[in-house]
Amino acid sequence: MIVSPLAPASFPDLPEIAGVRFAHAEAGVRYKNRVDVMLAEIAAGSTVAGVFTRSSTRSANVRDCEAKIGGAQGAGAAFVVNSGNSNAFTGKAGDGSVAAISDAVAERLGIPATRVFTSSTGVIGERLPHDRIIAKLDELKNNLTPGGIDGAARAIMTTDTYPKGSGREVAINGGSVRIAGIAKGSGMIAPDMGTMLVYIFTDAKIGHDALQALLRAQTDLTFNCITVDSDTSTSDTLLMAATGASGIDVTDSVAFNDALHEVMLDLAHQVVRDGEGATKFVEVRVNGARTNADARKVARAIADSPLVKTALAGEDPNWGRIVMAVGKSGAEANRDRLSIRFGDILVAENGWVAESYTEQAGADYMKGQELVIAVDLGLAGGMATMWTCDLTNRYVEINADYRS
Amino acid sequence: MIVSPLAPASFPDLPEIAGVRFAHAEAGVRYKNRVDVMLAEIAAGSTVAGVFTRSSTRSANVRDCEAKIGGAQGAGAAFVVNSGNSNAFTGKAGDGSVAAISDAVAERLGIPATRVFTSSTGVIGERLPHDRIIAKLDELKNNLTPGGIDGAARAIMTTDTYPKGSGREVAINGGSVRIAGIAKGSGMIAPDMGTMLVYIFTDAKIGHDALQALLRAQTDLTFNCITVDSDTSTSDTLLMAATGASGIDVTDSVAFNDALHEVMLDLAHQVVRDGEGATKFVEVRVNGARTNADARKVARAIADSPLVKTALAGEDPNWGRIVMAVGKSGAEANRDRLSIRFGDILVAENGWVAESYTEQAGADYMKGQELVIAVDLGLAGGMATMWTCDLTNRYVEINADYRS
Repeated sequence: MIVSPLAPASFPDLPEIAGVRFAHAEAGVRYKNRVDVMLAEIAAGSTVAGVFTRSSTRSANVRDCEAKIGGAQGAGAAFVVNSGNSNAFTGKAGDGSVAAISDAVAERLGIPATRVFTSSTGVIGERLPHDRIIAKLDELKNNLTPGGIDGAARAIMTTDTYPKGSGREVAINGGSVRIAGIAKGSGMIAPDMGTMLVYIFTDAKIGHDALQALLRAQTDLTFNCITVDSDTSTSDTLLMAATGASGIDVTDSVAFNDALHEVMLDLAHQVVRDGEGATKFVEVRVNGARTNADARKVARAIADSPLVKTALAGEDPNWGRIVMAVGKSGAEANRDRLSIRFGDILVAENGWVAESYTEQAGADYMKGQELVIAVDLGLAGGMATMWTCDLTNRYVEINADYRS
Repeated sequence: MIVSPLAPASFPDLPEIAGVRFAHAEAGVRYKNRVDVMLAEIAAGSTVAGVFTRSSTRSANVRDCEAKIGGAQGAGAAFVVNSGNSNAFTGKAGDGSVAAISDAVAERLGIPATRVFTSSTGVIGERLPHDRIIAKLDELKNNLTPGGIDGAARAIMTTDTYPKGSGREVAINGGSVRIAGIAKGSGMIAPDMGTMLVYIFTDAKIGHDALQALLRAQTDLTFNCITVDSDTSTSDTLLMAATGASGIDVTDSVAFNDALHEVMLDLAHQVVRDGEGATKFVEVRVNGARTNADARKVARAIADSPLVKTALAGEDPNWGRIVMAVGKSGAEANRDRLSIRFGDILVAENGWVAESYTEQAGADYMKGQELVIAVDLGLAGGMATMWTCDLTNRYVEINADYRS
């Protein structure tokens, strides 16, 4: 496994969250000799919120989580996640697998099955061998530990080249609140539909409705602002549990909101940095649009464009392709008002290349690993930012060979 | 230059169109020693219609053609096309280049400048050296010949690996009408916005408004149904001239409509077959959708998906990715009603893989060069067909290196 050149130096030291314990195991769901199941046990009194893909072919697990997420809070809960098989498009058998796992976990942890949230990620359309997961539940239960989140992060990886985690500790109301999150994702990543697999835990005290609203709002500013390949997963799931063990109520807390935003954005960026085949991490900033929605259309058109992304892979400052992407986006734009920058370098303005721009300056900028493409439409105050990566031969190789 | 493995065996024998003469030349717009300008002279009494990209950053030439296309018909006309430089995002200088070429052609051919339609294709954002084109106009005029359409097809190529032409001769009202068309296109090809560069000629007699309506309708069934890479050009242009030299009025002729459809579809398919790096020609058929618009959304989601297209490149019958694309399309779909076929092979139905399906059958099918992916949503009668190609390493190589 070649680790992405954009990977963080190491997995972060995440704070332990009072009221949550983790375990992982090798269940052999698809491959032998790799961790592929995680269990998170969440204490009674916690609230659980979630955001899910809107795909019309979303997996049995996602549908089950959707049905459970708004239900009675307060009882203990569990997150169970396997990699290797997505349990998507597996018909009634898929629903049965979810029920079997939920019942088995509920029995062992002494919680209602309606509080067991499952996720599966991997190949679509193959029967989930849920017996292999159930056979590991006693081992998982025995190994539960508050410090086990790093193993959990490894257990949910598929084509990821590194585990993804992010945490914060913030002072609120004279006390201290902790947040720790993990994520997986590398391909089949597209914005505006949901997320990938993300699990966030906090010891803050917050009701379900408030947590759900917060999570939805921050998803729109983080996970919904990234794209690797414009393809949206059938399994995208973000689950968050708040145990309340800190005793600190964070409802309406700006500090908590900010800390959660940082954790979610960090995880979202880590997903892009592990984009299949990625060698460049690219921030696309759009302002001056007629509306924020228009700005998002332009940012997404640039971030999704295969021609922009292959130019980035080739370190070619081909700004004409950015003009193309603006043009096709469907957003209002005026050739003579828009300007384009690479980082601080003014590339184009007044409907043409800038007088001060040199091809050499653009080419030098493109050699960097962290790039900013900024477009000002010059119309009004609408703005949006998205994050993406380049499109390389390695992406094609990974995805032409995925199952063979 | 490696010719696409999907290319036709040879350029077709196109019928000569009475009232149209062609010439081509080496103007050195960007490269030396290759034909890069074509001129088509169209006799007085002809009607001219056109369909253009809706990109908000469309080129100076496209804006000029749009302004001219509905104007007074009847005078002689000309199409002038260069490759190597798109004259898009070139500010006021770009408008000046179009005017300079139009005036110079008009003077030499004795026609109004408002009847000179220009197209430019190639790199975006560089000043068009229009003097080099104007310097070749006398040579072009002297070489005009009714049989020169094959040279014109070569002169408009950019990353194309073969020239594209299609023609038909149809019996109508006891006489005979001829249609001949040429096209260029290989990358930056996406549906629903316009076309690539296409020029079609006929000796049929038909008024401007009827020809324009026909062209728009057939564009929606042909060029707007193909995609190579989901990126839309700033220069997409389809121009058609009807000289009336056959004396046969084709207004409301079903036979003419059908023949024009065949020519346009043939050219559209040839563009996909020359898709950058393509090794597979793929028809995506969707039926059973709630509406035709929904069917088109699903067909486009499949045809544009990088994950579907890389699987095709790898000859991997990864039908789970088709399920994913259906799910993300935004069209109404029901997991338990949709079915998927590879050619005649039933792959999935009733929300899961079909009992009769074997991975070996799917893998064998994928080895073919011409593939059909058929999705039945099982909801109502909406249907659509799109054509696409696979996504290979060669696509990335071509586009990471385009300008360097």
